[in-house]
Amino acid sequence: MCHTVAVTEAIDHTVRGSWTPAGGARSPLPAHALRWLRARTGLEEGSTPAGPSSVLPVAESALPESARAALAGVVDDANVLLDRDSRLGRTGGLSYVDLIRRRSGAGLAAPDAVVLPETPAQVQRVLDVCVEHDIAVVPFGGGTSVVGGVTALRGDKRAVVALDLAQLDRLVSVDPVSRIAVLQAGVRAPDAERLLGAHGLTLGHFPQSFERATIGGFAATRSAGQASSGYGRFEDMVEGLRMATPVGEWRLGVAPASAAGPDLRQLVLGSEGTLGVITEVALRVRPAPTVRRYEGFVVDGWERGVAVVRALAQQRELADVTRLSDMDETEVSVALSGGLKTKALRAYLNLRGVDRPCLLVLGWEAEDGRELAWKRAAALRIVHTFSPVTLGSTAGESWRHNRFAGPRQRDALLDVGVCVETLETATHWSAIPALWSSVRGALTDALTAPGRRPVVMCHISHAYETGASLYFTAIVPRDPDDPVGQWQRAKAAACQAIAGAGGTPVGTITHHHAVGTDHRPWLSGEIGEVGASVLDAVKRRLDPTGILNPGKLIPTPGQADQDPQIG
Amino acid sequence: MCHTVAVTEAIDHTVRGSWTPAGGARSPLPAHALRWLRARTGLEEGSTPAGPSSVLPVAESALPESARAALAGVVDDANVLLDRDSRLGRTGGLSYVDLIRRRSGAGLAAPDAVVLPETPAQVQRVLDVCVEHDIAVVPFGGGTSVVGGVTALRGDKRAVVALDLAQLDRLVSVDPVSRIAVLQAGVRAPDAERLLGAHGLTLGHFPQSFERATIGGFAATRSAGQASSGYGRFEDMVEGLRMATPVGEWRLGVAPASAAGPDLRQLVLGSEGTLGVITEVALRVRPAPTVRRYEGFVVDGWERGVAVVRALAQQRELADVTRLSDMDETEVSVALSGGLKTKALRAYLNLRGVDRPCLLVLGWEAEDGRELAWKRAAALRIVHTFSPVTLGSTAGESWRHNRFAGPRQRDALLDVGVCVETLETATHWSAIPALWSSVRGALTDALTAPGRRPVVMCHISHAYETGASLYFTAIVPRDPDDPVGQWQRAKAAACQAIAGAGGTPVGTITHHHAVGTDHRPWLSGEIGEVGASVLDAVKRRLDPTGILNPGKLIPTPGQADQDPQIG
Repeated sequence: MCHTVAVTEAIDHTVRGSWTPAGGARSPLPAHALRWLRARTGLEEGSTPAGPSSVLPVAESALPESARAALAGVVDDANVLLDRDSRLGRTGGLSYVDLIRRRSGAGLAAPDAVVLPETPAQVQRVLDVCVEHDIAVVPFGGGTSVVGGVTALRGDKRAVVALDLAQLDRLVSVDPVSRIAVLQAGVRAPDAERLLGAHGLTLGHFPQSFERATIGGFAATRSAGQASSGYGRFEDMVEGLRMATPVGEWRLGVAPASAAGPDLRQLVLGSEGTLGVITEVALRVRPAPTVRRYEGFVVDGWERGVAVVRALAQQRELADVTRLSDMDETEVSVALSGGLKTKALRAYLNLRGVDRPCLLVLGWEAEDGRELAWKRAAALRIVHTFSPVTLGSTAGESWRHNRFAGPRQRDALLDVGVCVETLETATHWSAIPALWSSVRGALTDALTAPGRRPVVMCHISHAYETGASLYFTAIVPRDPDDPVGQWQRAKAAACQAIAGAGGTPVGTITHHHAVGTDHRPWLSGEIGEVGASVLDAVKRRLDPTGILNPGKLIPTPGQADQDPQIG
Repeated sequence: MCHTVAVTEAIDHTVRGSWTPAGGARSPLPAHALRWLRARTGLEEGSTPAGPSSVLPVAESALPESARAALAGVVDDANVLLDRDSRLGRTGGLSYVDLIRRRSGAGLAAPDAVVLPETPAQVQRVLDVCVEHDIAVVPFGGGTSVVGGVTALRGDKRAVVALDLAQLDRLVSVDPVSRIAVLQAGVRAPDAERLLGAHGLTLGHFPQSFERATIGGFAATRSAGQASSGYGRFEDMVEGLRMATPVGEWRLGVAPASAAGPDLRQLVLGSEGTLGVITEVALRVRPAPTVRRYEGFVVDGWERGVAVVRALAQQRELADVTRLSDMDETEVSVALSGGLKTKALRAYLNLRGVDRPCLLVLGWEAEDGRELAWKRAAALRIVHTFSPVTLGSTAGESWRHNRFAGPRQRDALLDVGVCVETLETATHWSAIPALWSSVRGALTDALTAPGRRPVVMCHISHAYETGASLYFTAIVPRDPDDPVGQWQRAKAAACQAIAGAGGTPVGTITHHHAVGTDHRPWLSGEIGEVGASVLDAVKRRLDPTGILNPGKLIPTPGQADQDPQIG
């Protein structure tokens, strides 16, 4: 950890018991979009708005008074919350299944208490208390997990507390020479940008969960942001880590690179709160960009689009944001934007002979116009060899403007009776066509039913020299009788397509959403029984009594053979 | 692992029992260099050539006949070598202490046998036999470790075998679309380039050990090459790994990036044969360059030189090779090149008012002249803001020509009574000046004695946005009475400077030489007692009986407090 300039700055937060759903205003679904959706999927008229949370069942807290008192002895009475709303606010994350559970109340798992430590030292002492009192601990940052990563599972413990890191909200230090900033785990992404911005710096990490997600969560889940082509995945930015574990505090990271044995930071990154609670992260930062340019292009056909992105990646000229939609996603984007411009665009593409339009968004950010022009010219030299239709910066800026709107749009879709969820994977370039096809097929087949015609669409948002991610979104009229099972069967079919037949995975079970509960049954297939055994060995060494985030990530022996239903 | 195109190509080798010292011809020390060295260091006249290896003491093999027979049952009789020369050839690596031991015979540890498996499956079965017969296993690739990584230590086992991977020498597959090649662990770097070159590809990994080192060794030690600024460190190239362990075979790597839990590949990379034997590595490859340009510059002063490299790194415009020598290393380079050109250069620098010349070598390699010109222009725009003296391509090409000559020069220096050794570290930019100064001071103080004036010099050869490596070379007249202790005391002093006071490391104990026996006492200080405990847990899970490479890497509990003497 680098502590060159101790600044201990923080954004003023009033977190306490209040918990609000996805930040910002909910975007209502435009009428033309709803019309298109009904025609395309068979969705019927009607609305299914969420009811008041006051009707949801929440069990009495099972936290023993002795444990509560011990926790209050560490963090103060005011930072141990037992009230219904606080507990309900930390039942889980933001997956489709989580949202459905919050609407129906079925399967809700509220923690027995919410604990809000104020310092890394307090986090360490909270763990000590929880070991002593046999209490499970679910580390809670922004609560944006879409894989069950923060579901308040108790495991075999007496009770479970949500360890909310919201008050670890400080910028600890900035080293402007080395361009390293140390941020506490509870700092939310917009606050991180604000705190760093005051020093002329940026982290450059913009996942769709940006508005709520935290530094600790990014590290614990190996997050990737929309600008990861330019700034790198979150793990690429991590210089050092500080983590509280039941066997003591662990600090890692003294140099930008090392050959001093295995890189143990890479064991903490992606550990999802099962090995310890990350309290501080030393991060590589960059000067904040002063200029940006986002542009849209249309390429004729998915194969050609993939070839463009591959060429950019392999010639190391990816734009900071590089995003390719397949035909279905392009069709949905155009349909949802609606109006006269849509008709004009369709006519123009027709005229240009584009039969299978795929939208390509490229975005550059830079310290000055010269650098931006340089990067852009290098990329466009490659792009233009694939004869794209240039849409200009309006299309690019339109994407940028809506880049964090996904969660709000999803809420609006849930309100009109839709099942909408995403999943993602990554594989090597040579396997991209087959994996794209098999996952689309699996989702489409599983979600098709009388009167229900799913839309399954995909984009590439993260590309590497050797391969890329595939991010799928499925939209289908919800099965009112079994809304959870409807999606779980589709998800299992998609996971099976990714996991491959005969024990050879075709892609990774998750490129940037992490494992949580939902991908846990599939992990052994990816890392092998030896890998699962290694995780188990590390888990037992760092968390001998198993208090940390039960039921997440770490495979149980032989779990690969279990029913892959997701819970 | 990617097996798209099975090619199973191999370079024809005749390895068997024959083992030769450092490849290529030994470069004798020019007369002017020797004169300079004597004047500068106090080195006396005389030569100390290595004696014949036939006089070295080698104990009888302790391998039980039952174990030998079982091993021969796996790999065939001809691949279990018990003869003196074969065993002597795998006693250890190429550190200064290793070389001195091979000259004196003192402290030599010959393995009891050399085993040469031909396939990954045979490697797995050899481990099974060694577990059953309680035999220690030292995986042996190019034998170029400079940290005791391949010393044939027996630990608490009945005997020790060197598991030489020379016959795992195949290019298993090439996926030209994904740009991934699978190479077996025993492929030497020049052969890897030859095998890949036939497909128009390159790995781009050129450490000084290039002529002998192997793919498996690179992976096991987190190697960094001279062109790592352009091609990345070896671990950056690794897509997948196949490793034999005592509990079964482990395969990792299905995608370019993943959020499926911790990146376990990063636990295999740097494991130095203590957790398993790497048998195959899937590597990102690139088109072989067709053009290159290497240039020399002189910057006035180390601080300014560091600033140049930092600017290049932080603006992400490092040349593929970026290498800055400090004043002492520059002086030695100039002195050793000798002749009229040296005088002319000194006069020219004088004229230009350069008081403290620091040599900067920048090298670019590219697929075509346009790409090279583009990269070079971007870098030079930055370099020229620091007012360097341009030496042109002669100086750059001169460095490139001699880039692998270090080991041979070292042999020549040993022959004239010199102690010469290197060590390296890395830290963040803000700590570079203090660490450079403290390590130089530690080495200089420890090696200075009546009649012995050390030359301690340093270069930066690997730079990152947040910091850089520091690579030190020390040259001093050898202490004939205690040649090993002379260096070990200096090394310990340097390691202490790196490890810092009060438990806060200033840099990493090794940036690219790995841990082996030599850095093992310092590892706990860097990764913490929790980190050491995690390594121990993984070791016990994968190698429950402890047959794999005893005495290397994995710290023993409380070792941080032990006497930091090395060897």
